[in-house]
Amino acid sequence: MSTQVNRKIVLVARPHGDPKPSDFEIQKEEVPTPGEGQVLVRNTLVSMDPFNRILMGNANSDQAPIELGDTMFGFTVAVVEQSNHPGFAAGDRVTGFLGTTGWQDFALSDGSDIRLVDPEAVPLTSYLGALGVTGLTAWVGLTKVLNPKPGGTLVVTAAAGAVGSAAAQIGKLRGYRVVGIAGGPEKTRHLLENLGVDAAVDYKADDFEQKLALALPDGIDTIYENVGASQFPILLPHVNLGAQIAVGGVMSQITTTGAFEGPNTLPDVLRAIFYKDLTVRGFNVTKFYDFYPEFLAELTPAVADGRLLSTTHVIEGLENIPTSFPDMFTGRVAGKMIAKIA
Amino acid sequence: MSTQVNRKIVLVARPHGDPKPSDFEIQKEEVPTPGEGQVLVRNTLVSMDPFNRILMGNANSDQAPIELGDTMFGFTVAVVEQSNHPGFAAGDRVTGFLGTTGWQDFALSDGSDIRLVDPEAVPLTSYLGALGVTGLTAWVGLTKVLNPKPGGTLVVTAAAGAVGSAAAQIGKLRGYRVVGIAGGPEKTRHLLENLGVDAAVDYKADDFEQKLALALPDGIDTIYENVGASQFPILLPHVNLGAQIAVGGVMSQITTTGAFEGPNTLPDVLRAIFYKDLTVRGFNVTKFYDFYPEFLAELTPAVADGRLLSTTHVIEGLENIPTSFPDMFTGRVAGKMIAKIA
Repeated sequence: MSTQVNRKIVLVARPHGDPKPSDFEIQKEEVPTPGEGQVLVRNTLVSMDPFNRILMGNANSDQAPIELGDTMFGFTVAVVEQSNHPGFAAGDRVTGFLGTTGWQDFALSDGSDIRLVDPEAVPLTSYLGALGVTGLTAWVGLTKVLNPKPGGTLVVTAAAGAVGSAAAQIGKLRGYRVVGIAGGPEKTRHLLENLGVDAAVDYKADDFEQKLALALPDGIDTIYENVGASQFPILLPHVNLGAQIAVGGVMSQITTTGAFEGPNTLPDVLRAIFYKDLTVRGFNVTKFYDFYPEFLAELTPAVADGRLLSTTHVIEGLENIPTSFPDMFTGRVAGKMIAKIA
Repeated sequence: MSTQVNRKIVLVARPHGDPKPSDFEIQKEEVPTPGEGQVLVRNTLVSMDPFNRILMGNANSDQAPIELGDTMFGFTVAVVEQSNHPGFAAGDRVTGFLGTTGWQDFALSDGSDIRLVDPEAVPLTSYLGALGVTGLTAWVGLTKVLNPKPGGTLVVTAAAGAVGSAAAQIGKLRGYRVVGIAGGPEKTRHLLENLGVDAAVDYKADDFEQKLALALPDGIDTIYENVGASQFPILLPHVNLGAQIAVGGVMSQITTTGAFEGPNTLPDVLRAIFYKDLTVRGFNVTKFYDFYPEFLAELTPAVADGRLLSTTHVIEGLENIPTSFPDMFTGRVAGKMIAKIA
């Protein structure tokens, strides 16, 4: 074991705006040996998330970044190589659900940041997508943050994204009429054909507002907001009295710096909140980790029988993460970005 | 009775922006005779509210206006002149709490829109202020719409206004540290000296943001927002994780038409909602009228012993309402505007 090499992706520069491959460096070290009570895991799937950009620094966030020279945080699926912990045995499949297993080949764990997963039940990529923190975020927003009436119309912004596609499908499973918003005809087609939404609207199209109105004959009862401002004021005229809005992300703002362009839409939004008795709630999924077992119990069968798809964008090789991760911020990637390590 | 004259203030023109005296006309008619089960009341105190402006039309609101030629809606305190209703007797004091008794000398009621009040317990003006819909709005926002932890810091915008001064004082009664925001040194002095807030900050002062920071050493746990956008983004950097915000009004927007000036602050606000786990709730007090008895039971003693003041701006004579009402929109009036009818 001690002759093996651990490759780790280390932050060496803080980006301004979108991340660049040169912000990362791949460093090598000897694979560590697990001590008393420790587990050595080898990552086989590594997740790339918007949150990783925030941790690089200079992001429009209150979250503290990691230090330069630190290994990038990241959710993973791994196999146990060596275990001195009674809960794990060599060969077990686990998910590193707190991100501490990171963007690297190997990681040590004390058992608190990994959880056994069943490789037979569902594709292992699911544990980074629909059954991972991505899916948990969507599920928490729709079931714990909000208390919506079932059966109304749910609008999901960035609906072709990782969290958005989970929110759209969970919405369908829970009996909503689901309208997904995404950029470009390829994504809206994906929403309709693969994710089973009732309507999909392309926010980049010239007739976005007209198409949106056509897709919302009964208004909006619930919004799962992922984007962070650009579509929000356009949705509000369609919102019904007493509607509920979960703010599960502000994707468009992560790499934005400086003032935002366009007219000041805040007064219109506050006016709608007041006159329409709206509830708007932001949330941080890490506060809801206690619901993980309930979430898995509800959604694992749906993933197993194909009612809940984890749309993935898989790249090969840890070494290709630095050049692939920036694609997340260009809108070119649909679904969950995952690196597969041979 | 039938020889008496009822003067009524009728809407004859819809304002654009601020209301004008010429939007109203005082018309006279014979005082009506109460039929079976009806009560004839004579108004002695008439309330002027921002809501009246909305009912005039061309307001930035979803609420339908009254018709041209209709008598202005308004909350009143009245005395029963004649009663064919078992619940009321001549000489009883009542409050017209649904606004149907209106801006006029006399009104007919079927008993459902008036409620007996005790003229000995508290000043009758209270029933239009701290113990009226004004106070109910503030109380509902702090106790039913939000579910805040007691003892934190509450910020009230437009704190010298009718609803704001009730919210500030109810906040003190419920154990908050209260910071009131108002325009000009006279209003902030009033907040400190008469309403007992812990700090008052003048949003018109050049050093508003510095003074605000000094007034918020422990951040903000709860906001009672009355204004509708201008101060809201300035408060958000001080807001603590999990803070709750009630949007009880958008006073600044009622007479605004067209686009709002200044930078687009919505992205910053959504970002704060997301990263700080905020809850923002708008509400319409009319949905909470069932809580009126609970509200009166809690706050009548506080009004009676002077812990909850109804700051009033009283004008004399129904006939002076058309020229006085527009003052509400210039920021010159502090407290509840009431017309006293001899």
